Amino acid sequence: MNVKGKTYRTVWLEKSRVKMINQPVLPFKFEILEFENAEEVAKAIKEMVVRGAGAIGATAGYGLAIAAANASEKYFAEEIGKAEKILKASRPTAYDLFYFTDRVKEAALSEKNAKKGKEAAIAKAKELAKKQVEMCERIGEQGEKLLERESRVLTHCNAGWLAFVDWGSAMAPIYKAKRAGKKIFVWVDETRPRLQGARLTAWELANEKIGHKVIADNAAGHFMQKGEVDLCIVGADRVAENGDVANKIGTYEKAVLAKENGIPFYVAAPLSTFDLGIKSGKEIPIEERSEEEVLFAQGKAESSGKTERIRLAAEESKAANPAFDITPAKYITGIITPKGIIKANNNEIKKIF
Amino acid sequence: MNVKGKTYRTVWLEKSRVKMINQPVLPFKFEILEFENAEEVAKAIKEMVVRGAGAIGATAGYGLAIAAANASEKYFAEEIGKAEKILKASRPTAYDLFYFTDRVKEAALSEKNAKKGKEAAIAKAKELAKKQVEMCERIGEQGEKLLERESRVLTHCNAGWLAFVDWGSAMAPIYKAKRAGKKIFVWVDETRPRLQGARLTAWELANEKIGHKVIADNAAGHFMQKGEVDLCIVGADRVAENGDVANKIGTYEKAVLAKENGIPFYVAAPLSTFDLGIKSGKEIPIEERSEEEVLFAQGKAESSGKTERIRLAAEESKAANPAFDITPAKYITGIITPKGIIKANNNEIKKIF
Repeated sequence: MNVKGKTYRTVWLEKSRVKMINQPVLPFKFEILEFENAEEVAKAIKEMVVRGAGAIGATAGYGLAIAAANASEKYFAEEIGKAEKILKASRPTAYDLFYFTDRVKEAALSEKNAKKGKEAAIAKAKELAKKQVEMCERIGEQGEKLLERESRVLTHCNAGWLAFVDWGSAMAPIYKAKRAGKKIFVWVDETRPRLQGARLTAWELANEKIGHKVIADNAAGHFMQKGEVDLCIVGADRVAENGDVANKIGTYEKAVLAKENGIPFYVAAPLSTFDLGIKSGKEIPIEERSEEEVLFAQGKAESSGKTERIRLAAEESKAANPAFDITPAKYITGIITPKGIIKANNNEIKKIF
Repeated sequence: MNVKGKTYRTVWLEKSRVKMINQPVLPFKFEILEFENAEEVAKAIKEMVVRGAGAIGATAGYGLAIAAANASEKYFAEEIGKAEKILKASRPTAYDLFYFTDRVKEAALSEKNAKKGKEAAIAKAKELAKKQVEMCERIGEQGEKLLERESRVLTHCNAGWLAFVDWGSAMAPIYKAKRAGKKIFVWVDETRPRLQGARLTAWELANEKIGHKVIADNAAGHFMQKGEVDLCIVGADRVAENGDVANKIGTYEKAVLAKENGIPFYVAAPLSTFDLGIKSGKEIPIEERSEEEVLFAQGKAESSGKTERIRLAAEESKAANPAFDITPAKYITGIITPKGIIKANNNEIKKIF
């Protein structure tokens, strides 16, 4: 997608180096970092230089591919195994990370010699990233059908291109609609506590020159009530067999409010987000993150221009910080997948697999 | 109420000076400011040293009382009129401000000489503040009946003692319950964009030694869904004839979520908050405040310990910032008034007037 008029991806491979946009310094600084080996790539994932399941997966795939490319021919399998371990330990719960590294390793080791294995690893990492981009584009094409010539969309958190290699999930329909000449306006929930909406989604939209306004998460219901939201599109961290969706904290609130106000509420998700081992949202554990994310906020200090963390509440006060919530399927109008828009229920989910 | 074990009020009169807690520096610094004349008091109101309709009203009353006390006997009425004008211009939409200044002026000018007028003005300002405190205590007594021996209450924004002279509205039942030996736990919505929950309500609760946790506004629905909220109590900026309530942005969201989860949702309000000239919430105009409140956050910088404003979103992004929203009466279980707990409808509201 566009950054100041130039086209970028979140992460890519260039001359045996993994290059990626440094996301923690966004939106105040646009910077490309490059990494030379699997250790560095794993560290970047751990420190959230890159985030979002899709983007993490592709990054790990590239990381293992450069490990293969740089491995000695004598200890080829051992060195790949070592790199794989390091990469998989970087964010142990991200499903895509495992999927990408497993495929790249398989490709590297299934060739008859190390030389061919190196080429195969690089080719596989590139192919998987390409497939992900295509899958997001399909989501975009499917979701675009939901958008009228003039649409006001509300989104929560960041399920944009920065969370994938390109296009994104929830944002892909918006980018497709823009390219089709439709006039789209986006309400961007700032998405406390980590503010991915204000920091990342708004930055993506500004670069794509799509009209948008950031709002306090508290204001989403007000704009729905006033009839200023035509539909909602959000991403998903996990979709259960019955269509219940785990996503960023606050998604459940917005879904209930959308239903109450008769506004369609869509979840956009690639197939890898569906977890067919999970019967319903009740089985999905909710990660409790550090209370500091709530007690503090981070941004660019007005006085110094530097990144600064500020405390918001009294030192005596504690906070609770569930990172995700569960939106029961009954609040979801449909799930936008690369294979079409389906209802959030067992039957329709089974059909696409 | 308690501040580090000592008892304070939000604002009081002491030797012809108006003293008040400096609220913008809370919760990181506890400081009492004093003001010698109506000009200084008006400036303090304008700069939000004191905020909350009830506290502003009492402050303005005290401001006019000291203006009367210091006025020349020769130009008594003129000087009071001048002070009144300055005070009324400080926050022109706050109803209580007008009510308090009008009563104090009336008291000053209805005596047969300036000397007696001065005494009457001081006495009236004190009496009005005392009445407000009593009214808040009545709200506390009424609302306390709703709280079981162990209750988990969710509140939004700050309708605590800092918003009045003492006790508060939404928080008064909690303080009464604590004193009755009940075990109360409070979920404190941080209340973006101005964070009155994180900054003020949590500070009040910490000082009263009442268990609480600050949460992102996004997490309120999640805790309701999980069955961890027994009831909600919020304040009100204005109550319409039909029971619709205008309150801090986000109140509507939490009310809808409470109803969806079968959780009682109460609004606490003194009689002065009811606006019987307004038929329904649709007639209440919503103040749109500066977008900077959303694009920035303010707190105590970790690096310097100083108050710092940080930018959260890209410089290219705009924000929308409605300060209030309307909660239709159908989402409100009851309104806690000094005269009892009533249903939010025309009939019951008429009865208490």
